[in-house]
Amino acid sequence: MISLFNSVNEFTEYRNSLATDSIGLVPTMGNLHDGHLSLIKKSISENQYTIVTIFVNPLQFGPNEDFDKYPRTLTADVEKIKSLKIEGKEIIVLAPSSVNEIFPKNFKTTISVKDLTNTLCGASRPDHFDGVTTIVYRLFALAKASKSYFGQKDYQQVLVIRRMVEDLLIPTEVIALPINREESGLARSSRNQFLSESGRVEALELSGTILKISRLLKEKSFQEAGIEINDILEVVLRDQRWDYLEVLDAENLEAVNINTQQVVIAGALKIEETRLIDNHLTKISYAR
Amino acid sequence: MISLFNSVNEFTEYRNSLATDSIGLVPTMGNLHDGHLSLIKKSISENQYTIVTIFVNPLQFGPNEDFDKYPRTLTADVEKIKSLKIEGKEIIVLAPSSVNEIFPKNFKTTISVKDLTNTLCGASRPDHFDGVTTIVYRLFALAKASKSYFGQKDYQQVLVIRRMVEDLLIPTEVIALPINREESGLARSSRNQFLSESGRVEALELSGTILKISRLLKEKSFQEAGIEINDILEVVLRDQRWDYLEVLDAENLEAVNINTQQVVIAGALKIEETRLIDNHLTKISYAR
Repeated sequence: MISLFNSVNEFTEYRNSLATDSIGLVPTMGNLHDGHLSLIKKSISENQYTIVTIFVNPLQFGPNEDFDKYPRTLTADVEKIKSLKIEGKEIIVLAPSSVNEIFPKNFKTTISVKDLTNTLCGASRPDHFDGVTTIVYRLFALAKASKSYFGQKDYQQVLVIRRMVEDLLIPTEVIALPINREESGLARSSRNQFLSESGRVEALELSGTILKISRLLKEKSFQEAGIEINDILEVVLRDQRWDYLEVLDAENLEAVNINTQQVVIAGALKIEETRLIDNHLTKISYAR
Repeated sequence: MISLFNSVNEFTEYRNSLATDSIGLVPTMGNLHDGHLSLIKKSISENQYTIVTIFVNPLQFGPNEDFDKYPRTLTADVEKIKSLKIEGKEIIVLAPSSVNEIFPKNFKTTISVKDLTNTLCGASRPDHFDGVTTIVYRLFALAKASKSYFGQKDYQQVLVIRRMVEDLLIPTEVIALPINREESGLARSSRNQFLSESGRVEALELSGTILKISRLLKEKSFQEAGIEINDILEVVLRDQRWDYLEVLDAENLEAVNINTQQVVIAGALKIEETRLIDNHLTKISYAR
């Protein structure tokens, strides 16, 4: 069964009538693709109720970013959810009819996570993560779900949300699922549809470069792979299309050091005005 | 009955074992005076359990403020609580043994409330209210109290906390109690003890000036009282000892306007290195 709410008050009333803890939350900005659907499927398999929120959150877009252009496809999204095997479980879609439904006019609170948000996407999108943590907190508080599902494509976002959940003692388990990729290797994203045919080919440079670094780190110690990796990073640094490409400690996004066990190789590449991100986790050996 | 916890984990375990909603929270920085005790008494009268937290929160002190000097008197505080009529109710004192108990080393989250924090104390203490909202959120999350008690002396703080509670959907009722004053009229504060005998007399200028403005506003319309009030404010503005003295809309701390029904007259005055604050609420008539 699927129910759709456009009113936060009506949603809240319904949510509070549910006398169960078996509730999963999948927060999305809509325009659902197979990546989102894999999160929803996982939640259906693990919970009696799955709450899917569909809300393009203005707080996480910068002034010159693509908030207005971001694809809004609610009818198609609901159809995609309906096509899933629901098998006696229940799906609740919360698609607020306006920004004021989620952030009332006199809303004045911001939640920020420091350090983790200074690097990668945080470096080039200054208020982005404050917007993310503030909306996700609000969705957590509305949904009161015991489990919450996020895609690993937004790796930094997952770390930031985990930090917030721990710091603010929010009673939900954050579950991150692997990146869902097209056959070409391109990470699925609602923004991929902005790419031309040739753009889709050019975009493979993102996953390709990340994988190349990952292979080097699997073959050699971090120090031995360093020279070749630096060559790759230097080329990227001179290339205006790349916003960043970094190899960081996967736990805290700090520089790799003797205690690092796993790195995240994360990049952002702009193709035809569309900014794409991708990442890959790799265990490393750090020669002493 | 009184129980004392220095460990947040042990407190949490005990709190989670309580199967009741009849819980009041009184967050304090210790060095309890009659103002604090009036909050605790009110909570005892309204709840089966009263949680009193005693924690000098470093986040709300600026680099040149009196964090180190702030009086810490735990033994005397517990004695004062013990001397109250508890009558079958239960008091739980949470006095964390270290800052890390409340803010673990990897804690990275800040909660901020905008607009309301730009004026009065917020103007001269830039990160003060972020420190307040962050600690108070954390205490709310640990205590899970249905009611929380604050003193009206920190009027701006109460407004900021109310805003946070609403924005973050925190399930506690914020109750603010009137300022507790010494016989002289001086608002009770843990900082009063830093004053010399002559300082205590000089300090009466704070409550006295605020009351003078309040009386003018009771006698005349806001516009008619305006000239005399401006004369008072001008004198204060030239006096280095005054940090601020303002007459603002009591609901939103904005400039008084045609919709204002009540004002807060709030001041901060430095006497012998000790910064004192005070305020008074007054209903106004606004001639049209």
